[in-house]
Amino acid sequence: MALAILGGTGKEGQGLALRWARAERDVILGSRDAAKGREIATALNAKLGSERVRGAGNREAAAASPDVVVSTLPDSGHIEILRDIAGELDGKVLVVATIAWPPGPTSEPSAAELARDALDALGRSVRVVAAFQTVSAGTLRKTESEPEDVLICGDDADAREATSALVDEIGLRGVHAGRLKQARIAEAITGALLKINKHYGVKSTGIRITGIDPG
Amino acid sequence: MALAILGGTGKEGQGLALRWARAERDVILGSRDAAKGREIATALNAKLGSERVRGAGNREAAAASPDVVVSTLPDSGHIEILRDIAGELDGKVLVVATIAWPPGPTSEPSAAELARDALDALGRSVRVVAAFQTVSAGTLRKTESEPEDVLICGDDADAREATSALVDEIGLRGVHAGRLKQARIAEAITGALLKINKHYGVKSTGIRITGIDPG
Repeated sequence: MALAILGGTGKEGQGLALRWARAERDVILGSRDAAKGREIATALNAKLGSERVRGAGNREAAAASPDVVVSTLPDSGHIEILRDIAGELDGKVLVVATIAWPPGPTSEPSAAELARDALDALGRSVRVVAAFQTVSAGTLRKTESEPEDVLICGDDADAREATSALVDEIGLRGVHAGRLKQARIAEAITGALLKINKHYGVKSTGIRITGIDPG
Repeated sequence: MALAILGGTGKEGQGLALRWARAERDVILGSRDAAKGREIATALNAKLGSERVRGAGNREAAAASPDVVVSTLPDSGHIEILRDIAGELDGKVLVVATIAWPPGPTSEPSAAELARDALDALGRSVRVVAAFQTVSAGTLRKTESEPEDVLICGDDADAREATSALVDEIGLRGVHAGRLKQARIAEAITGALLKINKHYGVKSTGIRITGIDPG
């Protein structure tokens, strides 16, 4: 089943596209510029040795993704784009990887909550889930990496489960981290990871939650 | 060299005491009630089969710890106790494991920052480091656990290093997570871990930072 990645020509979107394509899922890279989407899809297919990825405009990508749409749109402008294509998101799960930038305190809403609020205000029925905030593009580009988790935050249990299944496909573990508001903490962790990257001179730190599986 | 744990009769303090005593360090459990400190020290020694742990009042414990004092005092009252024994902390490193309770947004100061501010206001020279916020007492009680990290936040590099060395002793890994203000994020993560505990029906989740060691 096809999966759209809005803003999919960015590093995070490309990383996710590679992972899902390797898991034999058809991926539609959405872009503001459909030609750019197609160009990057061609490059990813060359890397993959397959034809799993195609490029499109964001609206067309969302329309072609039947159940779940993933957004790696950058913070700047993501609400505007989501409003613009809201009709294509109606009735679907929207997995938001976007992070409010620069990271603010947890007293302020996360990018995922702002997306939910904007779609609600348009009367659209979109179940928004936050995921992938803490996962770096560098990690996604690797074919093997340390066991790493994806924090999954959302108010709808089925939507969280659907997201978790997509995470499983790409060799990461989804950890249910509570309601959508908890995306604020996922964003805060990402801010901390960027500082940790800098301190250690690395680029792709992430997190693992220990102690979930009774040992 | 002896290490004092203020408020050491609580679960977190006892867990740390067990770990450090197993690493052949002498531990002084500080308590508001010295008799209770001695009683719990006796119980821990029985469990350890050694005499590494002794109990004392918080002031006496701090005085007996030459370089570093660890605080697992509960949020309620910790500032008052630190003010009261500030003279015994002067010139030392204070490792604060306390978490503001209930966890607030990251726009509000962490328990460790409040401790630093209170000691600064008294003109005491105490280098405050935040650590162990995300580490559960249950994990500390185990003799073996999944690889887990301790986020170390502080404004003084030597004090962070001293803390990291103490963390190494007990089989955990210290991760430098930036300035003391970053303790707010360690506290926020702890709040998220409590929700994760509840969701999965477990009690001792923690975190690991992935991607620090280039693989």
